[in-house]
Amino acid sequence: MTKLVVNGICEGVYIVPIEGDSIESSPVVEGEVSLEGFKGDRHAGFTLLSGSRTPFYPRGTVIRNSRQVSLVSTEELSLIARDIGLPQLQPEWLGANLLISGIPRFTQIPPGTRFFFPQGAVLLAQGENNPCRLAGDAVQSHFPDDAELSQRFIASAKHRRGLVACVEHPGIVRPGEAVRLEIPSQVLYEVG
Amino acid sequence: MTKLVVNGICEGVYIVPIEGDSIESSPVVEGEVSLEGFKGDRHAGFTLLSGSRTPFYPRGTVIRNSRQVSLVSTEELSLIARDIGLPQLQPEWLGANLLISGIPRFTQIPPGTRFFFPQGAVLLAQGENNPCRLAGDAVQSHFPDDAELSQRFIASAKHRRGLVACVEHPGIVRPGEAVRLEIPSQVLYEVG
Repeated sequence: MTKLVVNGICEGVYIVPIEGDSIESSPVVEGEVSLEGFKGDRHAGFTLLSGSRTPFYPRGTVIRNSRQVSLVSTEELSLIARDIGLPQLQPEWLGANLLISGIPRFTQIPPGTRFFFPQGAVLLAQGENNPCRLAGDAVQSHFPDDAELSQRFIASAKHRRGLVACVEHPGIVRPGEAVRLEIPSQVLYEVG
Repeated sequence: MTKLVVNGICEGVYIVPIEGDSIESSPVVEGEVSLEGFKGDRHAGFTLLSGSRTPFYPRGTVIRNSRQVSLVSTEELSLIARDIGLPQLQPEWLGANLLISGIPRFTQIPPGTRFFFPQGAVLLAQGENNPCRLAGDAVQSHFPDDAELSQRFIASAKHRRGLVACVEHPGIVRPGEAVRLEIPSQVLYEVG
C-alpha cells in the first residue's frame, strides 16, 4: 500500500499554550506527543468543539479531533513570504507545531500518509490546512502598518499552509531530527 | 474543499460481538454509533492493538484506531461473488458494519470523505480495507468443500473489499436510510 517514501528534517517544534487567546505557538527544545497530540498544547485531545471548519455541525458540538497537530514546510513558508513581500514567515505566527523541510509540495501530501520520527512518534496526515483569517490576522499583527497583509496571506497561503495530522503512536520529537514519510497509494475518485 | 456529493443507501447494519473469535458480524435493526465506533462492537475504541496491518509496530502496541467501522458495497460484493463463483457474498462474512449501495467504485472513495447519516452519525473514511486471510477463511467456512475459495476471495476482493472509517459525530444508524457522501478535493502526489 505504500507508494512512496520521502525523507525530510524536523526543523522546529512548537507548542500553542493552553491558556490565552492568541493562535501563536512557541518553540520548545522537545515535544512530548501522546495519542491526543502534543502534551500541553491547546489542540490536543481526542475530541474538539466544532467551529467554522465544520459548518455542518452546530458551533460547539463535540466531534472527533482530526486536527491534533499542525505541520508547515520551510520551503512553502518561504514561497508565501516572498509572495506577500515579507522577509520571512515564522511558523509560530501560524500556530504550527512542526516545521518540516525537504518535502516537495508539502501541503499536497495525501491523507493517510505516516510521518515516522526517530524516537517513536508517528503522525497520520489528515489533510490540507486551509488558511483562515485568524492566521492572516496573526501574521498582520507583526506588521501593523500593512493593512492588507492578512488578506494577501490568505490568498497566497492556499495549498501552502501545511497539513493537519493525528497521532498514531506516542513519542518524543526534537528539532533537527530526521522524519520519514510513507505515502499511501492514491486513486483519483471520479463519479461516472 | 468538497469536490463531489454522492448519495447512497444504507442497506444493512451489523455488529461484531465483543466476545468470541469469529470475525463475522450479525445484522441489527439499529446501530448506536459513539465517537469510538458501534456500541457493543469489537472494533470500537479510540485505540487498538497493532497487528499485521501495521507491521512497523511491535505486535500488540497501543495505537490510534483508524478502523472503528468497516463498510462494504452491495455492488462490489456482487462483483466479487460472481468472480469467485458464489451465488452471493454476505457482508456478515467479512465482519462489515455497514452495507452501502448506490456509490460507484465504493472502495476508491478517498480518505477524508464524510458519510452523513440522517440521524446525526457522521463517519470519516480512513482508506481502503485490504482483504486479509481471516476474511477469506470466513468466506470459505461457508463452503467447506471449496478448498481454494479463501485465496480466490483475497485476489478478487482487492480494491473491492470496502473502506474503514472513524466516527466524527455520534448518532443512530438504521437499515434503509439514505447516506450522503461529501468527497474532498484530491491531488495526486508525485515527487519530483
